[in-house]
Amino acid sequence: MLLGGSSGQSALLSLLWAVVVSFSYSAIPIDEARNELLNREKMVRLGEHLVLRKEEEQVNGNLMTLKKAEITKAMKTQEFPPSMHFFHAKKLIEKSDVFHILKKMPKGAALHLHDFGILDGDWLVKNVTYRQHCYICFNPSGTLQFRFAHSTPSNNKQDNSSKWILLENYRRELQNVTEFDNSLLKTFTLVTENPEVTYADQHDIWAKFDTIFHTVSGLVHYAPVFRDYIFRSLEEFFLDNVMYLELRAMLLPVYELNGETHDKEWSVRTYKEVAELFAKDHPEFIGLKLIYSDNRSKDVSLIKESIQTAMALHTSFPKTVAGFDLVGREDTGHTLYDYREALLIPTMEGVKLPYFLHAGETDWQGTSIDNNLLDALILNSTRIGHGFALSKHPAVMEDLRKRDIPIEVCPISNQVLKLVTDLRNHPAVAFMAIGYPMVISSDDPGFFGAKGLTHDFYEAFMGIGGMNADLRTLKQLAINSFKYSSLSSSEKKTALQTWEKEWDTFIDNLVKK
Amino acid sequence: MLLGGSSGQSALLSLLWAVVVSFSYSAIPIDEARNELLNREKMVRLGEHLVLRKEEEQVNGNLMTLKKAEITKAMKTQEFPPSMHFFHAKKLIEKSDVFHILKKMPKGAALHLHDFGILDGDWLVKNVTYRQHCYICFNPSGTLQFRFAHSTPSNNKQDNSSKWILLENYRRELQNVTEFDNSLLKTFTLVTENPEVTYADQHDIWAKFDTIFHTVSGLVHYAPVFRDYIFRSLEEFFLDNVMYLELRAMLLPVYELNGETHDKEWSVRTYKEVAELFAKDHPEFIGLKLIYSDNRSKDVSLIKESIQTAMALHTSFPKTVAGFDLVGREDTGHTLYDYREALLIPTMEGVKLPYFLHAGETDWQGTSIDNNLLDALILNSTRIGHGFALSKHPAVMEDLRKRDIPIEVCPISNQVLKLVTDLRNHPAVAFMAIGYPMVISSDDPGFFGAKGLTHDFYEAFMGIGGMNADLRTLKQLAINSFKYSSLSSSEKKTALQTWEKEWDTFIDNLVKK
Repeated sequence: MLLGGSSGQSALLSLLWAVVVSFSYSAIPIDEARNELLNREKMVRLGEHLVLRKEEEQVNGNLMTLKKAEITKAMKTQEFPPSMHFFHAKKLIEKSDVFHILKKMPKGAALHLHDFGILDGDWLVKNVTYRQHCYICFNPSGTLQFRFAHSTPSNNKQDNSSKWILLENYRRELQNVTEFDNSLLKTFTLVTENPEVTYADQHDIWAKFDTIFHTVSGLVHYAPVFRDYIFRSLEEFFLDNVMYLELRAMLLPVYELNGETHDKEWSVRTYKEVAELFAKDHPEFIGLKLIYSDNRSKDVSLIKESIQTAMALHTSFPKTVAGFDLVGREDTGHTLYDYREALLIPTMEGVKLPYFLHAGETDWQGTSIDNNLLDALILNSTRIGHGFALSKHPAVMEDLRKRDIPIEVCPISNQVLKLVTDLRNHPAVAFMAIGYPMVISSDDPGFFGAKGLTHDFYEAFMGIGGMNADLRTLKQLAINSFKYSSLSSSEKKTALQTWEKEWDTFIDNLVKK
Repeated sequence: MLLGGSSGQSALLSLLWAVVVSFSYSAIPIDEARNELLNREKMVRLGEHLVLRKEEEQVNGNLMTLKKAEITKAMKTQEFPPSMHFFHAKKLIEKSDVFHILKKMPKGAALHLHDFGILDGDWLVKNVTYRQHCYICFNPSGTLQFRFAHSTPSNNKQDNSSKWILLENYRRELQNVTEFDNSLLKTFTLVTENPEVTYADQHDIWAKFDTIFHTVSGLVHYAPVFRDYIFRSLEEFFLDNVMYLELRAMLLPVYELNGETHDKEWSVRTYKEVAELFAKDHPEFIGLKLIYSDNRSKDVSLIKESIQTAMALHTSFPKTVAGFDLVGREDTGHTLYDYREALLIPTMEGVKLPYFLHAGETDWQGTSIDNNLLDALILNSTRIGHGFALSKHPAVMEDLRKRDIPIEVCPISNQVLKLVTDLRNHPAVAFMAIGYPMVISSDDPGFFGAKGLTHDFYEAFMGIGGMNADLRTLKQLAINSFKYSSLSSSEKKTALQTWEKEWDTFIDNLVKK
């Protein structure tokens, strides 16, 4: 049962009946039937049961006035950011009054993020590539590699890459450093002027996506950068009024200048330490947890090892490592079913390892990949990464809801990665209309030209929620982000208290205006 | 309750429980849980309850092999017709083996068509504009008007149009008639090489859409052409293996060469006579009914008159005039609620006038237009034209289903008119997955470069149905087209019998191959 009880239904029918049998027109019956339907739809909408205090109602009124003006204008100009590609829409969004309110809004937690998709290329160019000891290598395919080292790294014998060049020297020889830095910037981002032309299909955009991860890898896994990347990530989200993060982290080896590499435990400890350091100066910051992730392109035997690693990490760092996920493009990877032997290891060994599985990040219905949603449910996934294909799976949809398992909706990511063009056609539109468990996140904002959660909240509020989503919807999304997090009950309680204080300040500041 | 009972659910939970508590891995529990989910989803899919006879199973096997090959190839090449604009996809579709089977398939009835959106521009240029006494007038805005007359028509005094020119003379003076005919062709169609560039937004495409209707009006309302247009429409659909049509007809005045005009009754009689004439030579042809339609841009007072006309026509031609609808772009027109006084007249007067209301042909959620779906339900609409926005209205969705009121899904129309880009994101995808009442139709195939129903069936079968839709889905869609038609019970029975014979022949021919 997706909707509420059926008592409303019989009431409606009797009203309709009144219209039909009375044979005397009156405005009342049609209006009553209408209000009854409007109320039934209102009742099940995401966040509708929340009761707002007087000040919140006031803020809601103002917010909805701004929102309606923006949508009404867009209906005339046909320039509606959620129906445009984000790369074109971004400038418009950032001019929006609604966007500025959303920016200030305490949005709670970001639960679907990837370790090194958070910061933008600009940060990498300016704050990383100008550091000492940074070597660069130009591959014949046009891709770049970076490496920090005391002395020139040696080449892989099997490839035809150029030699490693000290970037400092390379820049010194250049006539136009700005031009070079801009070209670097382009290798760190998916953003382009004409995404429709640059990326003809999903293959193109995913190829570039994977290349970026590969390119930044040598930069971000250098220990000092690794620490700074984490710190700056927390800072960017915190500045965007996000207080808590759960990161899908691959935990690839982090290296030092002398070539020494660190193991996964070191990386987890570093995440923990940096988060604690950040929290010292930012008492409202709640923390960071990791979802250890491996790539779904790998053989089952390797994923079996990763599951063992995940169990060990979850045991060693119960407060930091929340569980496990498989990442990478679903359409070209193995299915969850292919990995069933690996994924059932914890059950078999009587160990509890929470899963946060990507599932249904595909447009292809009825394929083996599309069935990942079934297996994510069967494997007791704590949340569903994306779940874009969920509306095609009524049984999974029903069971997930009964078990209160949310989908992690990442609107901009889904659009940029070409699952949907106009976000008003995002399947989450129907889910939001029935109050389906969900959170909003930003996946890899650094690659998309977004920051924190606000751009995605804008798309969700304006495009997915339509004219009906209001402050209640937003508040519920923020509450959901804690409710569906991996925080313990007591951590959740504290987190919600901290968030509520922030929320009240946010409301009071808007009321004062 | 959108899905079946909950007994399957408890069975699933017990299986999951078995996995969780047994702590001994075995492939069986996960497979059983999986099959249980797969079966539950299969059970509710459109047409899944149909039992196929042996020969149908054989045809289904072959059909699904072709379909799977086509989809699998598309996953590699990323050239999947339903995710491309139809103007680009058309050539690919027509090369498809699946398309050729669908073409031969007896598809039943076409229930959502507009009177003069059926035939393509080529037919108009070659079979209409070359007739004697055809005058043309070039408006300063670049639009064209046509008029058949004994002598040169006089101009409207208030406009700056050119004089009326006898087309025969005009063509005689031209150096390049082919070029001129091609330019005419362009004024009769939405088809263009780069629809994304030609039509930046919905305003653009609807403007052109309305212009075409205006342009062809003078041609198709000339009595001899009017008759031929109807006849050829029936023929094209019949050749496409569609046996019955319900047309939204505006019933604008039809004129003779001497300027004499006919009333609506004359038009209805002519539709009836031409259909009977066609049926004489095509005994499998079942017929034609009309849904008298007026434009939702008009004032309420005028629509009140139209409702009176509709009631009169429905009384005078109970077997030909099925009911009433309001047509035109919803987003710029009046809402159904605005017309409530008009639309409640039949109820008030105790007259039964079935409605076939367009509702929810919009992307704008939560607007007054979006609420047309509520009012279409309350006003007892027999079917819902498009219902594109339905997934955003859970209460309406539930009630329509309970009352077995179908949506008329027109995939190509929705794509061309820019409601959705990739048809895998069409809301009907989720509806087909839950066996929601629906029929497939083609709206205005003549403007879109489509013919009959087959192109839309292809999009629905491949794009909306995904890998799961099979012969059962197709058969159910054909059966639905009679079930949800305005045919009387006895007419339905006869129609289904005729259709079943055709269906069996279709199957047997494929088996023989």
